[in-house]
Amino acid sequence: MNHYTYEEIRIGQEEQFLVTITQDMQDQFRKITGDLNPLHADDAYAARKGHPSRVVFGMLSASFLSTLAGMYLPGEHSLIHSVEIKLRKPVYIGDTLQICGTVSDKSDAVKIIQVKFVMTNQDGVKVAKGEMQIGVEV
Amino acid sequence: MNHYTYEEIRIGQEEQFLVTITQDMQDQFRKITGDLNPLHADDAYAARKGHPSRVVFGMLSASFLSTLAGMYLPGEHSLIHSVEIKLRKPVYIGDTLQICGTVSDKSDAVKIIQVKFVMTNQDGVKVAKGEMQIGVEV
Repeated sequence: MNHYTYEEIRIGQEEQFLVTITQDMQDQFRKITGDLNPLHADDAYAARKGHPSRVVFGMLSASFLSTLAGMYLPGEHSLIHSVEIKLRKPVYIGDTLQICGTVSDKSDAVKIIQVKFVMTNQDGVKVAKGEMQIGVEV
Repeated sequence: MNHYTYEEIRIGQEEQFLVTITQDMQDQFRKITGDLNPLHADDAYAARKGHPSRVVFGMLSASFLSTLAGMYLPGEHSLIHSVEIKLRKPVYIGDTLQICGTVSDKSDAVKIIQVKFVMTNQDGVKVAKGEMQIGVEV
């Protein structure tokens, strides 16, 4: 876990990590949310909608923004104020996502950093992008 | 689960449900994401940051947008394209959130609905708000 203070963070700073999405993650996310949509559970159903297999919950991919903020950028002193995420391409079980965040702005008066992020799969396809506003409160 | 088609959905349509955030949800979300930030695990640490107890992961609250789209609005035929969420106030274990979505726009050419949402706790405090763009693909 990183422990950056607001002052230590510089515009352009980048942090990244990899996550492989497992069936267990998908099952646990379903249990938490109660989202029983068959697109995320039933391969045959997903195939009829044009997918090679069940689709990973978009908000499961988004969940790793918690990790990006709370573990990496800024780490310990993180408090997420807002998130904008565009889910561009489907993610499937077994995909490995590279989640990369870059500090794009800082607001000194309120100690909030803006982090732009991109999620890219193992084939180099951008599956999601967006930005977060994160307070840095030591 | 609802099964609304794009044509059946009307601007102004509203769906809502309640969720009580449990310690088990928090623990499972931590396991999925690997976000080990102490603000979400350690009551004494959270107290030093001015909170009555450990804080619910903001992205755990956001996870219920999966449920809003995939179960309620539009339900089965949902595919989330984008999400904007502002996390306004902290959520604590045991809080019951009312998650309310309202259709605010429709884009006929691409069959995308815009849903504005508000999350309100048991004391009537708005803890989060925002909007989603959701494709409705039968």
